[in-house]
Amino acid sequence: MQSFAQLAAQFNQFFEREHFPTSPASLYDPNRYFLQLGGKRIRPVLCLMGNELFSSIHSTTWEAATAIELFHNFTLIHDDIMDKAPLRRGLQTVHEKYGNNTALLAGDVMMIKAYAYLSKVPEASLSSILSLFNKTAIEVCEGQQLDMDFEQQAQVSFGAYLQMIEKKTSVLLAASLMIGAILGGAGERNQQLLYSFGLKLGLAFQVQDDYLDAFGDPSKFGKQVGGDVLADKKTFLLIHALDTADADAKERLLYWQGRQDTHKVAEVLSIYKSCHVDEWALQLKQQFLEQALADLDQIAVVSSRKIPLQSLADYLIQRQV
Amino acid sequence: MQSFAQLAAQFNQFFEREHFPTSPASLYDPNRYFLQLGGKRIRPVLCLMGNELFSSIHSTTWEAATAIELFHNFTLIHDDIMDKAPLRRGLQTVHEKYGNNTALLAGDVMMIKAYAYLSKVPEASLSSILSLFNKTAIEVCEGQQLDMDFEQQAQVSFGAYLQMIEKKTSVLLAASLMIGAILGGAGERNQQLLYSFGLKLGLAFQVQDDYLDAFGDPSKFGKQVGGDVLADKKTFLLIHALDTADADAKERLLYWQGRQDTHKVAEVLSIYKSCHVDEWALQLKQQFLEQALADLDQIAVVSSRKIPLQSLADYLIQRQV
Repeated sequence: MQSFAQLAAQFNQFFEREHFPTSPASLYDPNRYFLQLGGKRIRPVLCLMGNELFSSIHSTTWEAATAIELFHNFTLIHDDIMDKAPLRRGLQTVHEKYGNNTALLAGDVMMIKAYAYLSKVPEASLSSILSLFNKTAIEVCEGQQLDMDFEQQAQVSFGAYLQMIEKKTSVLLAASLMIGAILGGAGERNQQLLYSFGLKLGLAFQVQDDYLDAFGDPSKFGKQVGGDVLADKKTFLLIHALDTADADAKERLLYWQGRQDTHKVAEVLSIYKSCHVDEWALQLKQQFLEQALADLDQIAVVSSRKIPLQSLADYLIQRQV
Repeated sequence: MQSFAQLAAQFNQFFEREHFPTSPASLYDPNRYFLQLGGKRIRPVLCLMGNELFSSIHSTTWEAATAIELFHNFTLIHDDIMDKAPLRRGLQTVHEKYGNNTALLAGDVMMIKAYAYLSKVPEASLSSILSLFNKTAIEVCEGQQLDMDFEQQAQVSFGAYLQMIEKKTSVLLAASLMIGAILGGAGERNQQLLYSFGLKLGLAFQVQDDYLDAFGDPSKFGKQVGGDVLADKKTFLLIHALDTADADAKERLLYWQGRQDTHKVAEVLSIYKSCHVDEWALQLKQQFLEQALADLDQIAVVSSRKIPLQSLADYLIQRQV
């Protein structure tokens, strides 16, 4: 039984290998460039942890974890094109450095390579893992499309936002755990419980992310506080504020949408506070976290095996709040 | 044993089904739009023919054929973005109609859906079919990248162009046949021979395509004669002409690159003729066709089963020359 940090160190070592041939360099240099930008590698480590919850890590779980990380990087390369994002992790995005066409194709080949790694799992599990991966990949695309659609809408319902976040973020975390569980020999009920744990954990994480953007400690939070507010991003906070604010507060919230002004962040945060959005968000996060831990609790393995996942949940969700 | 036309009619019926859910319509309407633009469905029918060369068509070969056609359509959607093509089959391309972001994502989801169909083949064949499909898909991306790279180069060698065409066009034809062969229970040597048949047939087809663009009968050839010349496209003809022309003819050829003038097509074609590029191209096509048919000939099944593929090769390659 190993902690997230221990498995992350091992995964990083495994992942350092050369994933792409040298030629054509015009196609594969962009992929190499993007992968060396790094990342927290949460999803592949979840896959390893999902396996280790049930049994010692199968040799091909490393390959499946690699597939998941490559798939995640494919989504980032294409999302950056769609968002016209100039930077990722402080460095140039692929399309910014190599042009849109090459970034598009580099993303495509990254995704296919993900399938190539996934194909290395044992034949007995291939069909079920592939089905889960396909379903998840389609949902991730749907989530990205919904996210783009929401940018064009004045108001988005809580339910619709939740569904978007679930697809864009949570399902891949959940599937990472479940693929690990399948490779670890888990029974179907245990697989489903672990999937559900990942889904709820992802939602809790997103609520926290939205919360920290508005109310985080600037000295601890990596990003600019109020960034979502400035960008008029739909977040759990904005959606709940619009849902619950009185007519006057709602009018002021809508007034600030699309406006840029030095007072904007302070004004919007003060409306959030007047609607108690901050307390509500902490409660919502806690609720998702408890649901996640309840699912984990029900999984039929000795409780000591669950400690790394419980610690990870605590670490991810409690951080800096 | 059925002809290409018979199998195409059946495949079109099978393929008419709804491949995508209705929601989010912003993502799936573009996919539906693109598929109803039609196409000759050569690749999926090759898959069916590859199966029928060895045994009656397996129920899941229809799914594999669908996967191949969806994959091909994914490449068209993304290629159209990269080429900034306004039209496909006389109608708006996906990015032209729905915007670049949606076209990018619609292509992504089309590719994932291809994998979803492919996953339906029997478990015993899944691993080998998936490996072949992944290898092929990566090569198709590499071919597209090489094609884009060549646009920036003044001169391209015959070998490099051949490799590009093989990857961009031939390998998917070859893999379509081979996937069908695997599902039809072919042995490994027969699979490889059929793959090689497809590869050579694809090359013969491309030589013919390049030839017809320059020397085809305008009344029979669907496209504008000289289109490749006007667009300065690297073709078998241009590459061979640059390789074999004397200093004066080569200088004139290079002079016309990048120039637009009403005399351009006539001038370039006259240089081609002076270098006997037309006769050379017909010989090259014949050579690839004979190599293809020699591979088919060696496949260990009764010769009557080979008739539909022989007829198809004759039909594809002899047309309108």
